[in-house]
Amino acid sequence: MKIGLFGFGTVGKGVFDILEERPGMDVKYVLDLRPLPEVTTAIVTKDLNQILSDPEVDTVVELIGGMHPAYEFVTASLKAGKNVVTANKLMVSMHYAELISLAKEMGVSLRFSAAAGGGIPWLVNLQRAHRASRLESVFGIMNGTTNYILDSMDTLDKDFDEALAEAQRLGFAEADPSSDIDGLDTRHKTTLSANIAFGVALEDDKVDAFGIRTVKKADLDCAKEKGYMLKLIGKACRVGAAGDKVAAWVEPTLVPLDTPQGNIHGCDNIIAFEGSHIGKTHFIGAGAGRYPTGYAVVQDVVDIFCGNAGLYNEEMALMPVANEMECHKYYLRTDFTEDPFFAALEKTPWGNGFEVTSSVRDMHDFAARAKVAGKEIFFAGHLAF
Amino acid sequence: MKIGLFGFGTVGKGVFDILEERPGMDVKYVLDLRPLPEVTTAIVTKDLNQILSDPEVDTVVELIGGMHPAYEFVTASLKAGKNVVTANKLMVSMHYAELISLAKEMGVSLRFSAAAGGGIPWLVNLQRAHRASRLESVFGIMNGTTNYILDSMDTLDKDFDEALAEAQRLGFAEADPSSDIDGLDTRHKTTLSANIAFGVALEDDKVDAFGIRTVKKADLDCAKEKGYMLKLIGKACRVGAAGDKVAAWVEPTLVPLDTPQGNIHGCDNIIAFEGSHIGKTHFIGAGAGRYPTGYAVVQDVVDIFCGNAGLYNEEMALMPVANEMECHKYYLRTDFTEDPFFAALEKTPWGNGFEVTSSVRDMHDFAARAKVAGKEIFFAGHLAF
Repeated sequence: MKIGLFGFGTVGKGVFDILEERPGMDVKYVLDLRPLPEVTTAIVTKDLNQILSDPEVDTVVELIGGMHPAYEFVTASLKAGKNVVTANKLMVSMHYAELISLAKEMGVSLRFSAAAGGGIPWLVNLQRAHRASRLESVFGIMNGTTNYILDSMDTLDKDFDEALAEAQRLGFAEADPSSDIDGLDTRHKTTLSANIAFGVALEDDKVDAFGIRTVKKADLDCAKEKGYMLKLIGKACRVGAAGDKVAAWVEPTLVPLDTPQGNIHGCDNIIAFEGSHIGKTHFIGAGAGRYPTGYAVVQDVVDIFCGNAGLYNEEMALMPVANEMECHKYYLRTDFTEDPFFAALEKTPWGNGFEVTSSVRDMHDFAARAKVAGKEIFFAGHLAF
Repeated sequence: MKIGLFGFGTVGKGVFDILEERPGMDVKYVLDLRPLPEVTTAIVTKDLNQILSDPEVDTVVELIGGMHPAYEFVTASLKAGKNVVTANKLMVSMHYAELISLAKEMGVSLRFSAAAGGGIPWLVNLQRAHRASRLESVFGIMNGTTNYILDSMDTLDKDFDEALAEAQRLGFAEADPSSDIDGLDTRHKTTLSANIAFGVALEDDKVDAFGIRTVKKADLDCAKEKGYMLKLIGKACRVGAAGDKVAAWVEPTLVPLDTPQGNIHGCDNIIAFEGSHIGKTHFIGAGAGRYPTGYAVVQDVVDIFCGNAGLYNEEMALMPVANEMECHKYYLRTDFTEDPFFAALEKTPWGNGFEVTSSVRDMHDFAARAKVAGKEIFFAGHLAF
């Protein structure tokens, strides 16, 4: 098996290291704009076509990240009849149906286990579970950066800004942390999980996402006093009488202290599915990092090498995100009291705000209006765990 | 695919129900000594040979349980060239090398995912993990009955006898609970996990096991005061400078309250592996029950149906259990103070007993002598989590 590796950053280097230990899986090319004198066992090139036109290369591993040029490179690779392994959650969640269809048409594998769960064998277990069980929901802490921030706000008694700065200093948060703290990273992972669990192709940007940018230490304190931790949770579930619609969202969530979810520390992730026959099955592990993510990428390569690497789910029904059909309780703290939605809510005092009940769609729309109006808002879903 | 199902008890009925929903996987025979008028879509027979001599049957599912006649039936089935799926942890852990060798020789699959972890996809994930990572340890709460008992002693403030009786009344413990509460069930699961993780074939009865029969509410209380829960943990790990030996044991263990392990309730299980590249990956779910266990059995059947069901691990090095090489701290409460081992221990007062350091082998041998001498003893390992 000859491999073309696109990108030699944190994860790319990790994959390269792990594959060097493995006989039979040779990285023949590394595609990178920089010269890489440390790479002595592979051809370093800036020329995509050199790799795609080499008939010896059967599989490419895309670890450039971001949308461009990763999307163009992956599309060209699939069209050239190469199997593709990628960790690119942005690209795969935004172009899911298109990329899966192209892989199907070309008769090649497209695998992206590392795109959700990092080192946790999450998507492959989802794939395996839906063979024998009707899955009802997927949910969990899917982003290590936000978990690190919330955990250190709690255990080290820090404010949000302080905890974020510390996470950046330690390399757990990026210089521009928006994708993590605004819940976009979790949104992509939730979309991919829903797509595989339910055999759908959700529009990623229709999945409501509200992050932790506006959380205060006082919110955590009042949650804790009532027996909860605050965690950023992505969830997707069947809704409607026949369970044939899907709701999917990302929001800070009240998690009971005496659950596994309430006791996930540092950058760890926990993700679960619930299905017929099996109840809830949870997976905990490193959600990111050079070697955990690299390991997940290599597992996809091994699956292709072993010849048992079909698609995660053959079905991909296009359907709207039905967040108007999912209602639950919320903790809501806001000064956007003039909005008609707020006025109409039945409100019970709770901590520094209120407990209210709303559809996911309405609550997230309200938050968007509050943001536009320059008002303060923080909310947290209150789910059964 | 035509299936012969051996046994129609709790799990057998569950497997039958789940397979009835699936096209392409037909239960042709049910082997049971009782007439089963409720079975209308399969042939009910008492005659093993009727099934084994039917060339249409390619796979048998053994759910009789216990050693005999399950062992004879499985051996005969493998010799007849049938794939075998079983949930029988006793049989597979005691005859591991022999059964795997026979399956290899006959070129058939022998799968036993349900034998450890119940509905948790544990052994298949171990198999997958060791492809890409050197595994260093496996550990966890692998028995739902003992977790239920310890959890209700804690949350409902019960004594051991009371909690056991309640578990029996609710069907979570058997009339003879010895295998669960003395740690034998966990021992079989630990052996199987170690065998697959490390490519070995341990002698199951050399894995030291000490259960929860002698635990008192006061032990839980003192642990809790110091920030721990008591859980029955099975663990196996590499030991020795080169990591080429394996230690494996089952014992009550002090688990920090702020970990996922410390927050597993009811009959749930949590099992983890730790490996190079990936750190710790944990799996939580239903460790037993008709449908969770049935689901795991059906997953094995689907793996065989899909044609990608090799052995969990091709290697099975015979090696002794090196429990003399694993030392850790223990909480020890005993009145067997005249034993030379006890006298020689360096003891720090801890709760209702002492904190001491011992090899696993020495501590378990001491407990065995205490039992023979009719003395009181309870101990709990103190591991890093």
